[in-house]
Amino acid sequence: MRVFNFAAGPATMPLEVLEQARDELIDWHGSGMSVMEISHRSKAFLAAAGEAEIRLRELLTVPRGYRVLFLQGGATGQFAAVPMNLAPAQASADYLNTGAWSKRAISEAQRFVKVNVAADEAPSKYTTVPAPGALRLSTGAAYVHYTANETIGGVEFPYVPDSAAVPLVADMSSNILSRPVPVEKFGVIYAGAQKNIGPAGLVLVIVRDDLLDRARPGTPAVWNYEAMAAEDSMLNTPPTFALYVAGLIFKWLQQQGGLPVVAALNEAKAQLLYGAIDGSDLYRNPVAPACRSRMNVPFTLVKSELEHAFLAEARAAGLVNLEGHRLVGGMRASLYNAMPLAGVEALVSFMRDFERRHG
Amino acid sequence: MRVFNFAAGPATMPLEVLEQARDELIDWHGSGMSVMEISHRSKAFLAAAGEAEIRLRELLTVPRGYRVLFLQGGATGQFAAVPMNLAPAQASADYLNTGAWSKRAISEAQRFVKVNVAADEAPSKYTTVPAPGALRLSTGAAYVHYTANETIGGVEFPYVPDSAAVPLVADMSSNILSRPVPVEKFGVIYAGAQKNIGPAGLVLVIVRDDLLDRARPGTPAVWNYEAMAAEDSMLNTPPTFALYVAGLIFKWLQQQGGLPVVAALNEAKAQLLYGAIDGSDLYRNPVAPACRSRMNVPFTLVKSELEHAFLAEARAAGLVNLEGHRLVGGMRASLYNAMPLAGVEALVSFMRDFERRHG
Repeated sequence: MRVFNFAAGPATMPLEVLEQARDELIDWHGSGMSVMEISHRSKAFLAAAGEAEIRLRELLTVPRGYRVLFLQGGATGQFAAVPMNLAPAQASADYLNTGAWSKRAISEAQRFVKVNVAADEAPSKYTTVPAPGALRLSTGAAYVHYTANETIGGVEFPYVPDSAAVPLVADMSSNILSRPVPVEKFGVIYAGAQKNIGPAGLVLVIVRDDLLDRARPGTPAVWNYEAMAAEDSMLNTPPTFALYVAGLIFKWLQQQGGLPVVAALNEAKAQLLYGAIDGSDLYRNPVAPACRSRMNVPFTLVKSELEHAFLAEARAAGLVNLEGHRLVGGMRASLYNAMPLAGVEALVSFMRDFERRHG
Repeated sequence: MRVFNFAAGPATMPLEVLEQARDELIDWHGSGMSVMEISHRSKAFLAAAGEAEIRLRELLTVPRGYRVLFLQGGATGQFAAVPMNLAPAQASADYLNTGAWSKRAISEAQRFVKVNVAADEAPSKYTTVPAPGALRLSTGAAYVHYTANETIGGVEFPYVPDSAAVPLVADMSSNILSRPVPVEKFGVIYAGAQKNIGPAGLVLVIVRDDLLDRARPGTPAVWNYEAMAAEDSMLNTPPTFALYVAGLIFKWLQQQGGLPVVAALNEAKAQLLYGAIDGSDLYRNPVAPACRSRMNVPFTLVKSELEHAFLAEARAAGLVNLEGHRLVGGMRASLYNAMPLAGVEALVSFMRDFERRHG
């Protein structure tokens, strides 16, 4: 029986996509082979990869003057690749610290650049994002980096920071494709696939053309934006199956009506769950309302001794992977694009029932 | 209809493995979720990943004192990761050049270390490997690197080079798991997955414990052997689906009888094809017999004007992806573990028939 899977990533995927992947897993497009067994340089695979890029560009309305790269190594790899590609050794970069993933990005970047923390939400225990006017941007920074959505803390930027003429870099791993984004405001957008794009093992990079020629000499070829752009992301063998599934998901998103429709649904799902939390005496979410994540909703029980029962009963009701991140505990419901409204309705209904019985 | 797929990688996979992946793609182990939708830190996935490692260790009889890592970025990523992990900046390393992949490894390594080419098979047009006594190893090299099998040239080392006390590093991307290997002779073995391990997007690294603490400061975390070993390859989200399929393939290899049995079958397949080539007036393989690859068999037609007809007729007979590498042309038949003897028999039968009709 299919369950409602609230995992933070790898995360739930559209059932239609999984069914198609299953149905053609052994014989892809009548080739007598799996898509996993096909050369990445074959006409058929190149066509699929090209179509995936076109669909992604349509979904995000990526302007001319930007390259779309599909790489390996995850967002954690990009934590290193971004400074290597955008800043010479000895340069500095501005980072906004809004929680656990910001910290990991900063920690990795410090191997490669001097990091100036231009905002740090520690005083609120990372339940806020900085006010637009409160950024302490430095002079001469090679770029400004922020984490558009914090998967663990459940904090999401409701606005795009203004970095003036300095290239803006965003880790959008956990909210890419969840709503329209003004790509033209960014120098680089990157996102690990395993939330809204597809299987783990693929990382999307969208990079503005004028930033392609800045890589330092010691940048590994597979992460060199310019070298990868020149080879259409096929300087080496890409993760072909993950890229194929991503293409199916992009198609599915278009069939849903594109990002405006998807965004409205995500908004509805999030409001439903936050409403249930705020309207209850048992559940609590600590994040400032203006920057609550629409993708990841952490919550605790006022009676924390009920957590185990909550998770066990939820699981029995087909609502799984509601455990909070191992670093923070509590509960977390991730509501990525592939989570249907029915899943959130079932969760809210269960939460009300649980409160009635235990509250 | 299932075809015989002679692609060099991504390459043919065992049908039983594909069938199992298909059958449980939407509901893995009764979880109501795909294995693609499961957290890499869930008990179920950790058990599968742990089992995959154990099976791999059994297959290759990896001794104690070695770590097995499953990383991202392909062998091309390791071309950079190896010098970063094993050599300080300003150090030198010895590389054996036996063809196209050696050259790519050397070219990437030169970003990070001073490369001494300790053997270069250019005089034979890369149809040979150096004689065991002919290596010009340098004093003070951080490691000795070689390409165990050249996928494009079809050249394979029939012996393990002697690097004395210097760590020996091998790119085994295209012949790993094709026969037993004396792992204890190596400092590092690495291999991209897309030939004998599983789907593209995964790279295997086997590293001796005493080499874990040598990484230079600018080594990205996702490629830092020590950091990855400390986190059981889960410092960040691994390519979970590829790792799952690799586990199925390791199990399949054990069911075949393990590497001694697999090696004998690979030997039989290769002898059958080389015998057909050498016994014909139409087909030619240029490689010195002692170092002909058992995995990749390049060949040309004496009447090169027949190549197009050969490929078209082969395709019509269900023998596909016999085109040579785009850099060298001609034909190439890759005979990885998952290529059954029946596939090679069908190819040889077709080749004889084609020669009878066109020779």
